[in-house]
Amino acid sequence: MDGSEPTIDALQGGDRRALARAITLVESTRADHRDEAATLLAAALPLSGDAVRVGITGPPGVGKSTFIEALGMHVLSLGHRLAVLTVDPSSARSGGSILGDKTRMVELAKQPDAFIRPSPGGRHLGGVARRTRDAMLLCEAAGFDVVFVETIGVGQSEVEVADMVDLFCMLVNPGSGDDLQGIKRGITELADLVVVNKSDGDLTAAAGRTRAAYADALGLLSPRWQAWTPRAVACSSVEGTGIDEVWDTIESFTAAVDASGERQQRRGTQARSWMWSEIRDELLDDFRSDPRVVDRLPLVEKQVEAGDLTPTEAARQLLDAFEHDADG
Amino acid sequence: MDGSEPTIDALQGGDRRALARAITLVESTRADHRDEAATLLAAALPLSGDAVRVGITGPPGVGKSTFIEALGMHVLSLGHRLAVLTVDPSSARSGGSILGDKTRMVELAKQPDAFIRPSPGGRHLGGVARRTRDAMLLCEAAGFDVVFVETIGVGQSEVEVADMVDLFCMLVNPGSGDDLQGIKRGITELADLVVVNKSDGDLTAAAGRTRAAYADALGLLSPRWQAWTPRAVACSSVEGTGIDEVWDTIESFTAAVDASGERQQRRGTQARSWMWSEIRDELLDDFRSDPRVVDRLPLVEKQVEAGDLTPTEAARQLLDAFEHDADG
Repeated sequence: MDGSEPTIDALQGGDRRALARAITLVESTRADHRDEAATLLAAALPLSGDAVRVGITGPPGVGKSTFIEALGMHVLSLGHRLAVLTVDPSSARSGGSILGDKTRMVELAKQPDAFIRPSPGGRHLGGVARRTRDAMLLCEAAGFDVVFVETIGVGQSEVEVADMVDLFCMLVNPGSGDDLQGIKRGITELADLVVVNKSDGDLTAAAGRTRAAYADALGLLSPRWQAWTPRAVACSSVEGTGIDEVWDTIESFTAAVDASGERQQRRGTQARSWMWSEIRDELLDDFRSDPRVVDRLPLVEKQVEAGDLTPTEAARQLLDAFEHDADG
Repeated sequence: MDGSEPTIDALQGGDRRALARAITLVESTRADHRDEAATLLAAALPLSGDAVRVGITGPPGVGKSTFIEALGMHVLSLGHRLAVLTVDPSSARSGGSILGDKTRMVELAKQPDAFIRPSPGGRHLGGVARRTRDAMLLCEAAGFDVVFVETIGVGQSEVEVADMVDLFCMLVNPGSGDDLQGIKRGITELADLVVVNKSDGDLTAAAGRTRAAYADALGLLSPRWQAWTPRAVACSSVEGTGIDEVWDTIESFTAAVDASGERQQRRGTQARSWMWSEIRDELLDDFRSDPRVVDRLPLVEKQVEAGDLTPTEAARQLLDAFEHDADG
């Protein structure tokens, strides 16, 4: 690392630069950084866990940045400290978000009690998600008691984010769900809270209809929590109306799942499943990057797709090559 | 293997006992059987692929065995040869189905052109699914031109079966989906055909309503094929009514997805994804059965769930132990 090492004391002191350096350290793939990162995370772990973790998703053009600014400023006004993290696997090649997150959330970026961190780069979603989870722990250790994890909607990343937060919030446009056809089932099933944004001007009536349609649809889904039935709220991020209701709903949620013991229980389950997903990713990464596998893979995949080789035999050939390599 | 080795010639000759022995061979986990199995499967592969592959699922008590008998006898009456395979991960510990499949399908079991095979045992669903896929190839090489793959409904197995067949058929009870609330979304989204069974006696009217409700609901889901919109059909397996319509629908489906080229394309994609799922399972199996991992796992999982160890650090500790073992 450049300059002074990020220490747990500097983190706890609320030094945002120390936090930024600490996250850079856990994002690093350099072997000599791994031990340092592990030490730091181990020290951060007992200091983390008290924050409210909120996942936020929504289609392009729904006004996600504006919403995060509006809700974020409200949260800060209540005396909280807020960290905003982003999971964007499409940023893998560029090594970070295409749009700088700070230019997307101008007001929030100026606040001393807000910390904004763009998506880590990475070869695959699993790696991006892992580094975001570690960053979340560091933010919590640094005293940020509300964490937003924003997902740039590309299919699987919503599932990963829903799996690392307490409450998963889906933003939708007015008019998007006025009939059941318009309701995108897959992601809706993950949502603990649906927020209809842009409830202002001549979209206000449409937003109200959409909110009601989602409220109905959410009631049909199998509940993710015993103590919480998903709700739908309409708001205007531009005018600031309904933003307090969104936050109040998040607080009601937290109170309900804390009282039932489900939040703590869910976090234990999440942690165990993160561990296994990291093990799986790592094993598959080792396999995929093995030179003997790399050599054989293009031809084998082609033969399998063409029906010239059974999947079982193809897997066996590649695994034999891999194991032979490990022995040699 | 006991007795004579199953040969590809005996298979092609339509010898059911040779087929049964061949499947036992590919199900075997004995190292010396693996090469024989691979040779046999490699020979079977070019002879397979022409069959219609139908996945069949449904809740307990829906009359699945009776339906498979009725549809199976109809298929045989048209001159086809039928293989019925079962995927039942819950049979893992018993090493096979709890109810013998032959006693569940008495009529079908007597027919010379039918072949019925119970679920293979196995430690995990991936292994059960793999052996069923291999058995399917052997059945096809043995000249069975219609294959039913029945799933004993326990969540994930439906997804695995839908991923190995052309058409996925879901059986439902009359009255089960008369409103949208009653329609179980997850599995319904996989269905290319919904069959309302028990459309007889005083359930006939209810079955008609349920069929109509499903027909509506299916129209709302995102289509899995460009050339096929899922349909709903009512039938009585006991009286034999509507069974011909079920089969005609399956034939219409096959014609449509063959004409669009989607069936061939889907099979290529399925084969590639089978290969990767076998590789993943195998890598994870090796890991899980490693003595050093076995030693450490209980404590590490407990620490992770309690929040005393980060998932990343836990994964690293286990992976380090595993790799160290591989080197030693």
